[in-house]
Amino acid sequence: MAEVRNKQVVLKDYVSGFPKESDMHIIEGTVTLKLPEASSEVLLFKNLYLSCDPYMRILMTEGASSYTPGSPLTGYGVGRVLESGHLDYKKGDLVWGITKWEEYSLVSSDQTTTTTTTKPFFKIQHTDVPLSYYTGILGMPGMTAYVGFFELCSPKKGEKVFVSAASGAVGQLVGQFAKLAGCYVVGSAGSKEKVDLLKNKLGFDEAFNYKEESDLNAALKRCFPEGIDIYFENVGGKTLDAVLLNMRLHGRISVCGMISQYNLTQPEGVTNLANMIFKRIRMQGFIVSDSYNLYPKFLEFLLPHIREGKVMYVEDIAEGLENGPAALVGLYSGRNFGKQVLVVSRE
Amino acid sequence: MAEVRNKQVVLKDYVSGFPKESDMHIIEGTVTLKLPEASSEVLLFKNLYLSCDPYMRILMTEGASSYTPGSPLTGYGVGRVLESGHLDYKKGDLVWGITKWEEYSLVSSDQTTTTTTTKPFFKIQHTDVPLSYYTGILGMPGMTAYVGFFELCSPKKGEKVFVSAASGAVGQLVGQFAKLAGCYVVGSAGSKEKVDLLKNKLGFDEAFNYKEESDLNAALKRCFPEGIDIYFENVGGKTLDAVLLNMRLHGRISVCGMISQYNLTQPEGVTNLANMIFKRIRMQGFIVSDSYNLYPKFLEFLLPHIREGKVMYVEDIAEGLENGPAALVGLYSGRNFGKQVLVVSRE
Repeated sequence: MAEVRNKQVVLKDYVSGFPKESDMHIIEGTVTLKLPEASSEVLLFKNLYLSCDPYMRILMTEGASSYTPGSPLTGYGVGRVLESGHLDYKKGDLVWGITKWEEYSLVSSDQTTTTTTTKPFFKIQHTDVPLSYYTGILGMPGMTAYVGFFELCSPKKGEKVFVSAASGAVGQLVGQFAKLAGCYVVGSAGSKEKVDLLKNKLGFDEAFNYKEESDLNAALKRCFPEGIDIYFENVGGKTLDAVLLNMRLHGRISVCGMISQYNLTQPEGVTNLANMIFKRIRMQGFIVSDSYNLYPKFLEFLLPHIREGKVMYVEDIAEGLENGPAALVGLYSGRNFGKQVLVVSRE
Repeated sequence: MAEVRNKQVVLKDYVSGFPKESDMHIIEGTVTLKLPEASSEVLLFKNLYLSCDPYMRILMTEGASSYTPGSPLTGYGVGRVLESGHLDYKKGDLVWGITKWEEYSLVSSDQTTTTTTTKPFFKIQHTDVPLSYYTGILGMPGMTAYVGFFELCSPKKGEKVFVSAASGAVGQLVGQFAKLAGCYVVGSAGSKEKVDLLKNKLGFDEAFNYKEESDLNAALKRCFPEGIDIYFENVGGKTLDAVLLNMRLHGRISVCGMISQYNLTQPEGVTNLANMIFKRIRMQGFIVSDSYNLYPKFLEFLLPHIREGKVMYVEDIAEGLENGPAALVGLYSGRNFGKQVLVVSRE
């Protein structure tokens, strides 16, 4: 079996502060397209689409479950099985799950750990939708929006919902799910174009550019004169602080991410937590992989909406592994417009 | 019907920063011991014990549901009904609920509002325990410990519990409830005497004086090498920040109070909230009056434990309305040793 080229995106060293493209480099190794014998790595597959996700920044900081400098990044992706040593998968299967930032990967089919968001691979059964969707709307981010909004926040018709990072991979779905649930929904995002997208394409009732608001509290009061019932937290810091001032009694906050804090050596302080008491607020942090048992129910809910055009998904597609570092780094300055996908191969 | 003296503790003006005794004054009015006709105030009663509670500081700051300067403070208390215009109460009944800081009060029996912790009066049926207990262990603070610990945190045997302000009205009960539930429990308090009380009298497994710990994170790591499952939050600020670093996966935080923050014009920032995400932490703020429907169940649980000496309650008793301002203000410097009660009259 001939060796083939295997381009990889490798972390140079642990990162502090904002990540830069130069924190990673592209190396070219080789791989034999055959499963090694007696290995725990039981799948060989070709990576097709990789997912750029905010949580990846956390793994670049030195810590117990960090990336290993000198090794390729890991992350969610879509791939095709080339060889399988596991009964559940066979050659030719399309799968999504945690893979590596390279062209071909040898991976274990059982990746469950308690500290990261890894799980076994999901077989892709529906290919009448774009395959890249399994890095986004039909993958981890889609499930995140579904679990964080429906399962943790129990929305009721007429409730007022706020979403930060609202044009991102998760936020754009939370907003559309909120409309399906009969809620009023407002999103914040970081550019005029993103705000236009939210209001004119994605059906948000209102949206604002947080970079243009000198007073987030005032912006929220303007959009929510009666206050916020549900906040889907993607950013943390100042936004959370302003939200706490504007929550209604018995409000619910789903804590999905805090992207504004990941690059700070000293995170911003949140000062308004005492509002949780007299407003009886519940804040719930979550990691979506704990709820992957709901994936079939999620697909059953969402696929018809996608097919009927009732739920849209905006993707920002970067082509080629060599553009991976820029695509990933762009998340933290908000350069991406919608879900950031990296194409490794269109087969 | 003759007029009688009615001494009152009156707020002079809204407070900012730490409250001082001089923010209140004692005035002597008179009251006719008869219900006014066609009044919404349907109970006249004699106040016996008043409760000094941390939340009262919040009502001293100017705001929608604040105290009215020039009027007596309001707060929980135990009283005897002298006249009743309401079928549920009759002359001679002992009751507890929200009353006023004065000798005799005219009050409505229906005080339900959404912004404060008021509710109708509870009739006191069991007088084989000290009457003052109905300002503490058998009143609002006791219910707070019960609801915040059992209902919101769902403790399991063997779980690790941390309580701040652990010798206070609520904290001392949370610790004892945690032991009844088979948990390991550690408390923090502000003096050597309080720490001794926790360890030697109240059955806490461990306790520390937070004023003597230069590094709260290190103190928690020492007491909880495996981390904290349940945190009962009474103080906020730096303590919460250190706790977030030490929570275990799926930890629960019951947010009862944040006494360290009530006197600050600019509250301390909490910087470690991102731990909520990967640790899947749930934080739930609550106001106990939402759960007063559980009061009968609570009494059924707790009274036998009190009678059998299995649950203790430490009270700090101040005598006489004129000592009310000092007793109340003392809460914020931690001068009280156990539940701070103010005796108005022993009849």
